[in-house]
Amino acid sequence: MRAVDVIMKKRSGGELTREEIQFLISGYVAGAIPDYQVSAWAMAVFFRGMTSQETAALTDVMLESGKVMDLSGIKGPFVDKHSTGGVGDKTSLILAPIVASLGIKDPMMSGRALGHTGGTLDKLEAIPGYRTNLSQAEFREILARDGFAMTGQTKEIVPADRLLYALRDVSGTVESIPLITASILSKKVAEGADALVLDVKYGSGAFMKDAKDGEALARSLVDTGAAMGKRITALLTDMDEPLGNMVGNFLEVEECIDCLEGKGPQDLTELSLELAARMVVLGGKAKDSARGREICEEALESGKPLRLFLDNIRSQGGDPESFLKMRGVYRSEIKGEVRAREGGFIRRIDALKVGNAGVQLGVGRNQTQDTVSPTAGIQFHKKSGGAVKPGDLIMSVWAKDEAGLAQALNGLEDAVSYGAAPPENRRLILKSIESGALPKVSSRKPRSPQGTV
Amino acid sequence: MRAVDVIMKKRSGGELTREEIQFLISGYVAGAIPDYQVSAWAMAVFFRGMTSQETAALTDVMLESGKVMDLSGIKGPFVDKHSTGGVGDKTSLILAPIVASLGIKDPMMSGRALGHTGGTLDKLEAIPGYRTNLSQAEFREILARDGFAMTGQTKEIVPADRLLYALRDVSGTVESIPLITASILSKKVAEGADALVLDVKYGSGAFMKDAKDGEALARSLVDTGAAMGKRITALLTDMDEPLGNMVGNFLEVEECIDCLEGKGPQDLTELSLELAARMVVLGGKAKDSARGREICEEALESGKPLRLFLDNIRSQGGDPESFLKMRGVYRSEIKGEVRAREGGFIRRIDALKVGNAGVQLGVGRNQTQDTVSPTAGIQFHKKSGGAVKPGDLIMSVWAKDEAGLAQALNGLEDAVSYGAAPPENRRLILKSIESGALPKVSSRKPRSPQGTV
Repeated sequence: MRAVDVIMKKRSGGELTREEIQFLISGYVAGAIPDYQVSAWAMAVFFRGMTSQETAALTDVMLESGKVMDLSGIKGPFVDKHSTGGVGDKTSLILAPIVASLGIKDPMMSGRALGHTGGTLDKLEAIPGYRTNLSQAEFREILARDGFAMTGQTKEIVPADRLLYALRDVSGTVESIPLITASILSKKVAEGADALVLDVKYGSGAFMKDAKDGEALARSLVDTGAAMGKRITALLTDMDEPLGNMVGNFLEVEECIDCLEGKGPQDLTELSLELAARMVVLGGKAKDSARGREICEEALESGKPLRLFLDNIRSQGGDPESFLKMRGVYRSEIKGEVRAREGGFIRRIDALKVGNAGVQLGVGRNQTQDTVSPTAGIQFHKKSGGAVKPGDLIMSVWAKDEAGLAQALNGLEDAVSYGAAPPENRRLILKSIESGALPKVSSRKPRSPQGTV
Repeated sequence: MRAVDVIMKKRSGGELTREEIQFLISGYVAGAIPDYQVSAWAMAVFFRGMTSQETAALTDVMLESGKVMDLSGIKGPFVDKHSTGGVGDKTSLILAPIVASLGIKDPMMSGRALGHTGGTLDKLEAIPGYRTNLSQAEFREILARDGFAMTGQTKEIVPADRLLYALRDVSGTVESIPLITASILSKKVAEGADALVLDVKYGSGAFMKDAKDGEALARSLVDTGAAMGKRITALLTDMDEPLGNMVGNFLEVEECIDCLEGKGPQDLTELSLELAARMVVLGGKAKDSARGREICEEALESGKPLRLFLDNIRSQGGDPESFLKMRGVYRSEIKGEVRAREGGFIRRIDALKVGNAGVQLGVGRNQTQDTVSPTAGIQFHKKSGGAVKPGDLIMSVWAKDEAGLAQALNGLEDAVSYGAAPPENRRLILKSIESGALPKVSSRKPRSPQGTV
């Protein structure tokens, strides 16, 4: 087999066999196939796409490039949620303790902020002492005890994805649905969950700018997951405006506590409950999402998820008592405001512009080696649909430095649109996409010739 | 400027500016832009194409990566011919002395056989003593005296093409009309000709398998040449069957001598005269191709082109007298035959299969480092349309070794199709494509920041 023939087959619109995909990807990871062939192949995939079978084979081959998480001996079911990323997107920290309180284990391996999108690890690390570099033994112990554990990906998890993603990033081949699908699913399958809920976002602050592309990605993820024997439910959700009222690392953790106390913003609470409801269904604790929603609401009211979250802070190295005392006060000293330039209604707050301003404030990073600030961020006092008079306070803003503040304030002012009438309501959850009947391989466990971590 | 943005612009169907193309190609040649970005870009070009302006800019940028031939002080006009490659394609050796006899200078820089297609340098080197590695001074001296000189490309000519072609070859991006156009034209413009006749072949033995693709390439070459201020005429010609009756290195030189003596095969003589006629028009020696054809025929009858060719053999290191004595006898000792398996008519002799058999015989090479045999080859006693009885001799075959002979005979038998009726005539020359009015830059001389060789 020659790599150039595999490239040309894909270029001509052919369907690659598992052997051809394995030859290319395994050869790449082993250093036998050079990056200039893989980038050309990725561009051909961008134009020609992949069938579900090809995408599943790619996911599987990528999965086999590394180790998988060993959850043996821990009582399941294991259900996780993955979001395609957004601004103010912090539902993981709310739904994990909710579903854990209902007997579902959530083994979370999360990422960091990059570009305008936030990262769960950066938010958690804003809690003083909180560790996201758990050993396997720690991860297993915390997961078994608290019902959820939150860690970063080790280098042993899907090395093919790390290599391939870095190559796609510089070769203009990121925006390919099958390549995105394999990247997400290979990592999530390696983490050992039996089932997944996917929060596929669309809108200015999302990777997919419109609902059509978002739905295509959601469908690809659900179908490929099914081909790999994973039950997946995807929600297609709005990310045109930041989620909740807080954007920032510590700020967002605070807002999660608000939600767990039952006093969080409506959009964030709603989405967290809807995602949790699907996890409860996939975990076998409810027959449908309406019933799942009911028991998630009951759980929230019981206060148990809040206690589990505070327990988890302690388990992962933080101090829940001092953490709670920092609420409302742990903020950068460099502070600014965005006030209404016009009267009327806020028609839109552009999530992408807010996310980019967040990078300037120190919430996120442009490059993986940049550091982030725990205390920088944005608090919205009004969002779209809100009535304003000129000069009304719309946002409080905290920055790591003065230069960043000045830049960010410009961007944040620009993010707000005004009008004489309120905008039409955008639907927070556009659609739920579920897998049909699973293929015969559904009982197959994630496997890897590289063993487990 | 970032390479990934240039890639994504092309990926999205945008038109690249000269600056963007220069950034990518010059950066690649300088080692600042890695091959994995250039291969992804080339794949995007494969899918999205390029406008005439983009193709001309790419050609120009590639040209500027190296030196150009210095023809100053030699009396022009300088007109060359380039063929996109085929089997038995040897017209250069016939038309160069014809047009030289009419006062046109042909500065030929040629290539070697690769895959099923032959190479002019390999044919010339079959003449004992003949050198194709002329110094600049030798090339200029021979060109000025004989009217034509034939040499290989130096490393200083269009280094961007050498790099880019090698990358395209392994990344599945060879078959892109704008990339082919820039590759051909950059080298031909560097060689210093004022005008060019292009023999764009289509059919099984050609790079372009059908007339539509061949015409698209011809049109791209003519238009891009015009944008660069070069007058170009392209003939779209048939390469479904080998040209002439000889395929092989010394064999093909012999057949050229036959043509120059007025007793060559009809198809080879016809195509050589038609190409030469266009060169004569572009060189200002005839008002149209009909008149050009007349004066080329008169020149051939005068015997002067034959004398010029023999002079050139001496100029480039060979011995014309001993060369002429080798005619008909300089053949490999390992010999075979292909005889008719059926009676009736030969319907087709597949040029690709003949070319591939030629590689097995030792005429050509699969990889650039392979050596070729001067004395291997194929002589056709019948071609398509010929009436045969079972057992009639169709080809005499000479091989470098027994294993190659056995393989080649299989391929050659397979190349012949039979039928009860003769095939419809294929037209040797399907179409002539000429540039319209030249743009204002037409008087521009080839230029290069790298100087001349």
